[in-house]
Amino acid sequence: MTVEADTIAAIGRARAAAPAMAIATTRAKNDFLRMLAGAIRESRAEIIRANALDLERARKSGRGGAFVERLTLDDKRIEAMAAGVLQVEALDDPVGTAIEKWTRPNGLEIEKIRVPIGVIAMIYESRPNVTVDAAALTLKAGNAVVLRGGSEALSSNAFLAGLISHALKNARLNPDAATFIRDPDREVIQVMKRSRDLIDMIIPRGGQSLKNALDGSAVPLLPHFDGKCHTYVDRAANLKMAEEICLNAKCSRPSVCNSMEKLLVHRAVAEKFLPSIVARMTAAGVEIRGDDATRKIVPTVRAATDEDWDAEYLDLILAVKVVDSIDEAIAFIARHGSHLADAIVTGDAETAARFEREVDSATVYVNASTRFTDGFEFGFGAETGISTNRLHARGPMGLNELTTYKYVLRGTGQVRA
Amino acid sequence: MTVEADTIAAIGRARAAAPAMAIATTRAKNDFLRMLAGAIRESRAEIIRANALDLERARKSGRGGAFVERLTLDDKRIEAMAAGVLQVEALDDPVGTAIEKWTRPNGLEIEKIRVPIGVIAMIYESRPNVTVDAAALTLKAGNAVVLRGGSEALSSNAFLAGLISHALKNARLNPDAATFIRDPDREVIQVMKRSRDLIDMIIPRGGQSLKNALDGSAVPLLPHFDGKCHTYVDRAANLKMAEEICLNAKCSRPSVCNSMEKLLVHRAVAEKFLPSIVARMTAAGVEIRGDDATRKIVPTVRAATDEDWDAEYLDLILAVKVVDSIDEAIAFIARHGSHLADAIVTGDAETAARFEREVDSATVYVNASTRFTDGFEFGFGAETGISTNRLHARGPMGLNELTTYKYVLRGTGQVRA
Repeated sequence: MTVEADTIAAIGRARAAAPAMAIATTRAKNDFLRMLAGAIRESRAEIIRANALDLERARKSGRGGAFVERLTLDDKRIEAMAAGVLQVEALDDPVGTAIEKWTRPNGLEIEKIRVPIGVIAMIYESRPNVTVDAAALTLKAGNAVVLRGGSEALSSNAFLAGLISHALKNARLNPDAATFIRDPDREVIQVMKRSRDLIDMIIPRGGQSLKNALDGSAVPLLPHFDGKCHTYVDRAANLKMAEEICLNAKCSRPSVCNSMEKLLVHRAVAEKFLPSIVARMTAAGVEIRGDDATRKIVPTVRAATDEDWDAEYLDLILAVKVVDSIDEAIAFIARHGSHLADAIVTGDAETAARFEREVDSATVYVNASTRFTDGFEFGFGAETGISTNRLHARGPMGLNELTTYKYVLRGTGQVRA
Repeated sequence: MTVEADTIAAIGRARAAAPAMAIATTRAKNDFLRMLAGAIRESRAEIIRANALDLERARKSGRGGAFVERLTLDDKRIEAMAAGVLQVEALDDPVGTAIEKWTRPNGLEIEKIRVPIGVIAMIYESRPNVTVDAAALTLKAGNAVVLRGGSEALSSNAFLAGLISHALKNARLNPDAATFIRDPDREVIQVMKRSRDLIDMIIPRGGQSLKNALDGSAVPLLPHFDGKCHTYVDRAANLKMAEEICLNAKCSRPSVCNSMEKLLVHRAVAEKFLPSIVARMTAAGVEIRGDDATRKIVPTVRAATDEDWDAEYLDLILAVKVVDSIDEAIAFIARHGSHLADAIVTGDAETAARFEREVDSATVYVNASTRFTDGFEFGFGAETGISTNRLHARGPMGLNELTTYKYVLRGTGQVRA
């Protein structure tokens, strides 16, 4: 009961701060961002001290190296946070810009204008820099934000949230516009997901347990969940190009959602393509798991199980399957993919067009690596996440995706007939 | 248990039909619409016969005249349905159109393309024409649709759904793309709102009980709920213009969501404006309920209660309040409005700009009637509803609002650094 009351009180403060934040001037928002960047740079020592508490707790509870690594804030990462905030400052303010404008035959002018969404809740894990990134982006787009980081980074997050509060105050904005929830109780998330009247959107960033915790949320989610990306090497592919694309899609950063997890190869080119790609992948440290046809061609490949076709490895593992046609490739992706990023390598324009049209993914690639599914790579100038939703925003998100719109209608006394 | 299994099976049929519907050609979709319009015209007698069963049931159960009136299909309404379908046929197909297109420095071409949402469920009450309107619009936008009308119109709806099925089949489209749920059990709605994996969006059209039934829906809603619209007559208003706007906003169709329910008048013009607007409203049959200041000026006005300020009358009733400033007007609208449509009448540009910026409604009017909040009046060429959501779509919706988008990226072997 206390968790519920406290959480609602905290969210209520952000809600109350939202209307003024929605009409804050670009100058005030940019002042805040510059002050925040300055405060981060000036507080290096304190940030590292706060972070040390989290790191000690993680080590004591026996967390592994990768976990501790993600949790660590050092000089370089602190500088990257400050620089990221200044990058957001440099972005155009989306609020108040006209999306469309037209005049009706009766003289009524209609303007569709970007406005903030309202209160956005960010629920995230591990990396404490998300506290700063998320606040910078949501506030620049004129929203109030409720920040709920993982308990493993509580000390770091709380310190950074303090810097955000101070910077808001110094820019004469309401510090409640960024409300940090300190209570690590999982019940907090349950309260948030029921708070339809206080929160307009929840952006979750985390793993399966967070996904499960948010199941049945009454508040709309803009999730950033799994990426089971495919690359299909067509019979008409330039195989040299296909090799480079596949290696990049699998190996350049295997732990992220836009990396390739499944390779589909047309039977007509399998004998030529598979031995060489398997050799290069293996040399790069990738474990290959293949279907029967693949193993017939490259017998050293380990057999894939049924689970492999639906797995998201986020690791140096790749499942490989030989298909008989583009139809089979498209059907396989529809059944086993996550609709995030899927690629075809082909020199045939008609086949490419079919793939573009029929593969229902947020980002569909022809002759390029799936690793470009990213706000920076799209040229959005910011990393606000990659939506796996179909509604409101899909795929890489920029500042615009943190806004909604309203219509302003200007008349001279028009009435409806 | 049977309700659940049957409902899931029905929705599952629409889901299975969705991928082919998403890539159906414009020609096939238009063939379907023309065939449907033809079938409606040819089936007048049968439609009226099917409708007669609903009307008889309604009369037997003692439903009032307005209810029976809404339920009635006559020659004129049947022709209006057919004409509406042909209007949808004439609209441009949104699917496949490019929203944006740009090229990255590495030569990667990025195109943002409109695609269907997938499976849309329509839950509606009373008016059987919604079966036809909703199917025409959602299918033209390439979606599969699950239709769930009210039990009071079951016979009419089922007959019309049969015509839709036949027209789909005749146009060589899968009839499951429009799946009508016949079972009147309220549990059907509970199953629908849990079916996150089968339904991409629910569009509800109905009253408070439908709103309550959908509370906590795991499927995103695009609701069309209350409209508590305000008109604020500023101290700098042209009072003659204000009178015409208010009369139109209140009286032209009091039963709809974009009609005015509350009138706010600046104290500086209250003595001049109120006697005449009250007289004209009263003459038009409107019951006025006023605050103390209003009643001081026009003593015949009945006293408003606290409930009046939050009421949605949908009737010839108007609550009137005198305010001291634009600030008070904006704060009142924020507190008591429904963020759908609110208007100011003023000749002062600065005051108008403040109202535009600070009133957080889907449609904000300066010197015009709130009654223009409507897809046809916006020039969208169709009536797909008026969203009271903040996300995905806000305010009047056209065909575009029944779509989402994907990015197609065309390369020549690009890999990420």
